[in-house]
Amino acid sequence: MLITLACVGGKPRPKDAFEDLISEYLKRCVGVVRCDAEAFRTEKALLEWVSHKQGRTPPVLMLLDERGRQMTSAALAEWLRARLDEGKQHVVFAVGPADGWSDRAREEARRRGSLLALGPMTFAHQLARLIMAEQIYRACTILTGHPYHIGH
Amino acid sequence: MLITLACVGGKPRPKDAFEDLISEYLKRCVGVVRCDAEAFRTEKALLEWVSHKQGRTPPVLMLLDERGRQMTSAALAEWLRARLDEGKQHVVFAVGPADGWSDRAREEARRRGSLLALGPMTFAHQLARLIMAEQIYRACTILTGHPYHIGH
Repeated sequence: MLITLACVGGKPRPKDAFEDLISEYLKRCVGVVRCDAEAFRTEKALLEWVSHKQGRTPPVLMLLDERGRQMTSAALAEWLRARLDEGKQHVVFAVGPADGWSDRAREEARRRGSLLALGPMTFAHQLARLIMAEQIYRACTILTGHPYHIGH
Repeated sequence: MLITLACVGGKPRPKDAFEDLISEYLKRCVGVVRCDAEAFRTEKALLEWVSHKQGRTPPVLMLLDERGRQMTSAALAEWLRARLDEGKQHVVFAVGPADGWSDRAREEARRRGSLLALGPMTFAHQLARLIMAEQIYRACTILTGHPYHIGH
């Protein structure tokens, strides 16, 4: 399975401390899932990219959204395990623009996946990406029984 | 007011990408509150430090804890404003050890402040510190009407 950490908007940033940490977490998932990162200028560009993705199974789209459902790290790992069991080849977690997702994007996510809330707080764009990268890695460690989740 | 971002346990780390980002957020609070960071080897050391702090008002202790109450970023800013209005001089936000707080620490927090949950997910120690640093900065921008909170 490929997991894409996607984002829409946000300032273009070359290499900064956030990018280093995000890359590191995504790299550490190897052996469980492959991960990459994609940035889109607009929500429309993201949705078109998702709808044109060819593969044996269509991508599962998870939009990070305050209206989404909150999950514990263990519940996210179980959710991921269920997608693996279904034979899904591609899951896309997407961090939205500063003004949030449109109704159309939310509808698309409900059709292709779900809406996920990181909690009640609002996070900076790069921080939301980093949190999601760590949660993807944490889910991988939960699925493989690595002790990271219970305190390294 | 002084805000201390405290932590208990975690591996000793020199300067890493997390530390750089945390320092940067704490520095940016200047003009609203002063911030510093403290690390304690044990929960006991933290609680003794808090109880020996002298000042016109005793420190308000907020322990980050999954059993705590979840707050939006705006609610956290309002909470901070209320402490400023009460003339509190020192607020301590503390990230706990990997195995969580003891009942004694939770009791102490309820007496001196409260328990705060960042949401339902489990975060790495350094990531929890970074999230809290960003939320402190975000609260400062909400209190001063800086546009950061509504998308930079």
